[in-house]
Amino acid sequence: MFRVLKTEGGARRGEMETAHGAFQTPAFMNVATAGALRGGVSAPDVKDVGGSVLLCNTFHLYLRPGAKTVRALGGLHRFCAWQGPILTDSGGFQVFSMKNLRAVDSLGVAFISYLDGAQLLFTPEYSMQIQGDLGSDIAMAFDECVSLPCEKSYARVSAERTLYWLERCKRKHEELKREGKLQNPGQLLFGIGQGATYADLRRENMRQIVGLDLDGYAVGGLSVGEETPVMYEMLDAVVPEMPKEKIRYLMGVGTPVNILEATARGIDLFDCVLPLKAAQHGNVFTFSGRRRLLQTRYIEDSRPIEEGCDCPACRDFSRGYIRHLLKADERLGMRLCLLHNVRFYARLMEKIRESLDEGRFSAFYAEGREILGRMAQE
Amino acid sequence: MFRVLKTEGGARRGEMETAHGAFQTPAFMNVATAGALRGGVSAPDVKDVGGSVLLCNTFHLYLRPGAKTVRALGGLHRFCAWQGPILTDSGGFQVFSMKNLRAVDSLGVAFISYLDGAQLLFTPEYSMQIQGDLGSDIAMAFDECVSLPCEKSYARVSAERTLYWLERCKRKHEELKREGKLQNPGQLLFGIGQGATYADLRRENMRQIVGLDLDGYAVGGLSVGEETPVMYEMLDAVVPEMPKEKIRYLMGVGTPVNILEATARGIDLFDCVLPLKAAQHGNVFTFSGRRRLLQTRYIEDSRPIEEGCDCPACRDFSRGYIRHLLKADERLGMRLCLLHNVRFYARLMEKIRESLDEGRFSAFYAEGREILGRMAQE
Repeated sequence: MFRVLKTEGGARRGEMETAHGAFQTPAFMNVATAGALRGGVSAPDVKDVGGSVLLCNTFHLYLRPGAKTVRALGGLHRFCAWQGPILTDSGGFQVFSMKNLRAVDSLGVAFISYLDGAQLLFTPEYSMQIQGDLGSDIAMAFDECVSLPCEKSYARVSAERTLYWLERCKRKHEELKREGKLQNPGQLLFGIGQGATYADLRRENMRQIVGLDLDGYAVGGLSVGEETPVMYEMLDAVVPEMPKEKIRYLMGVGTPVNILEATARGIDLFDCVLPLKAAQHGNVFTFSGRRRLLQTRYIEDSRPIEEGCDCPACRDFSRGYIRHLLKADERLGMRLCLLHNVRFYARLMEKIRESLDEGRFSAFYAEGREILGRMAQE
Repeated sequence: MFRVLKTEGGARRGEMETAHGAFQTPAFMNVATAGALRGGVSAPDVKDVGGSVLLCNTFHLYLRPGAKTVRALGGLHRFCAWQGPILTDSGGFQVFSMKNLRAVDSLGVAFISYLDGAQLLFTPEYSMQIQGDLGSDIAMAFDECVSLPCEKSYARVSAERTLYWLERCKRKHEELKREGKLQNPGQLLFGIGQGATYADLRRENMRQIVGLDLDGYAVGGLSVGEETPVMYEMLDAVVPEMPKEKIRYLMGVGTPVNILEATARGIDLFDCVLPLKAAQHGNVFTFSGRRRLLQTRYIEDSRPIEEGCDCPACRDFSRGYIRHLLKADERLGMRLCLLHNVRFYARLMEKIRESLDEGRFSAFYAEGREILGRMAQE
């Protein structure tokens, strides 16, 4: 299913096959929380600006409209009009971020719905069932994502629980497949390694997870508040434990420079809400730095967000116009910023893949980490 | 500039030339308040679904970003990326709708800005200057729009003031043109007739306005709360006073059936925020009635909003998906409803024009007023 086409240092250029076609790696997934990008951008819009994989949030779709409803409407692909690959997260991250979290034990997680106050229970089996109904191409195992900083003793218990849950996920996923209950019969299952900021725990947990022989492996629980060097340190520790022949996914990451650094360390797949969060505040990415379009310097600026960009925002509109929309609370403002940011990330990944194809990733990395790194600090 | 191509009963099929191309009448203008349709729809989006003329609000653009800024960014057409005809209203309607209206006299209107509390003065000359900077193809004269019901004595004073203001508008517009100060040298000027719900005042006011020989004539101050039959009665009274060889514009109207009825009475041009307001609440127009997508019956409905519609919402998405987006507060929900509604209005106008072209408007009218009329009462 995953093929490494080429390597350069730790970095890999690959191709991942799914039931809805192949995608090229390193790849960035756009977050379509409830089947659309928050900010008025549809799946076909994402395709138009070069997005290749969509990530949908199991937890949000489970609460609304419900996995059975998505299934009745033809599954996630038809639901949001995306013919390409879709990955669903497990719901774990959202459940553990909730204010109304009630209890975590080996059975699962009890919590209160933010929609109607109902007491709900999320278990590994239930996560598999929901993702099975949604019909994504890649399901993620249900994991516990601890907040950082985290005591080592709790990190150990939690990593062990995540492993135990993963075994149950795998069993349930195989059962659903065997019984023909998956909306998407070709759905894959990825495992998630945890271990907080403890290199030894991370390594041990990943080794155990890899023992379960899954379709891909993810590094979870990073980019949740720790210092960036700590994240890179964890990658340096854990990536060597991940099999070379399987795809490697760093969850929830990240800034352009994070992606570059993680690619250099052997990661193949990313997702992040940053393009959305930035757009929400009128911040747009360009290859010469980040622009804050709300700044007064853009009031009468008739140039596009980024010269040479082919996104719909840059093709038709000026910085001055988009700034005006943002100031006037016109929804089109965020939509245009978001379309540009999605295009920027797609172009960033294209550039990374090209540099790998042409054997000049190390030069691209050296140059990129400086320019993109500056951007992150702005 | 305006040519009547064909008539059937009172209804007219025409063509209006502007500095940015011709448009076919009867025509409906989409309201792009501050240079975009509220709900995340851009001018190029409007073009994609068959919109032909854009209406922008002078008052809103004057407050933000300011007419000089729009001019610095290349004028309204470049600003919002719309190559076709644009009409700007005069700001009168907004000024008179304001809570912080301070004083109305023959000089103009004083009011407090809702943005920064500044005391501002709007005059006929100022309205012309602002619209001259914006660079629309059609400028509207600054008029007083009274709220209904209105005493006849005030309606008379107000209609006379509107006439006096119109003379000043015309003088100022000619001066700006002569001095080369119009951003769009081919900008036209339309006059607006008032007279509240008094047929004799309406007729008299229109006769006087027509005496000033303008590029087009509008009926203002209707569809502001009066009963629909009263609006039709006013049209029956005033339209015969409007010259046959000039375009006739009914401002702020209306529902599909209003448009049909007014077309039958000889109106050529319309605008209304109804497609937006409806979309905001998940209400969509179809030729078999209005749908309220928030109704529970649509939860698992996998059909498009309207079978046979070619808009992006109907092409890609189900009623169930769009309902879900609306419930989940995803901005894409309103955007899709709005794209459909804009397409519906464009198709309605296409159907009206076709029926006129083919000499079967009266049959279309008889059938349409029943179906569309039912819709209005829902």
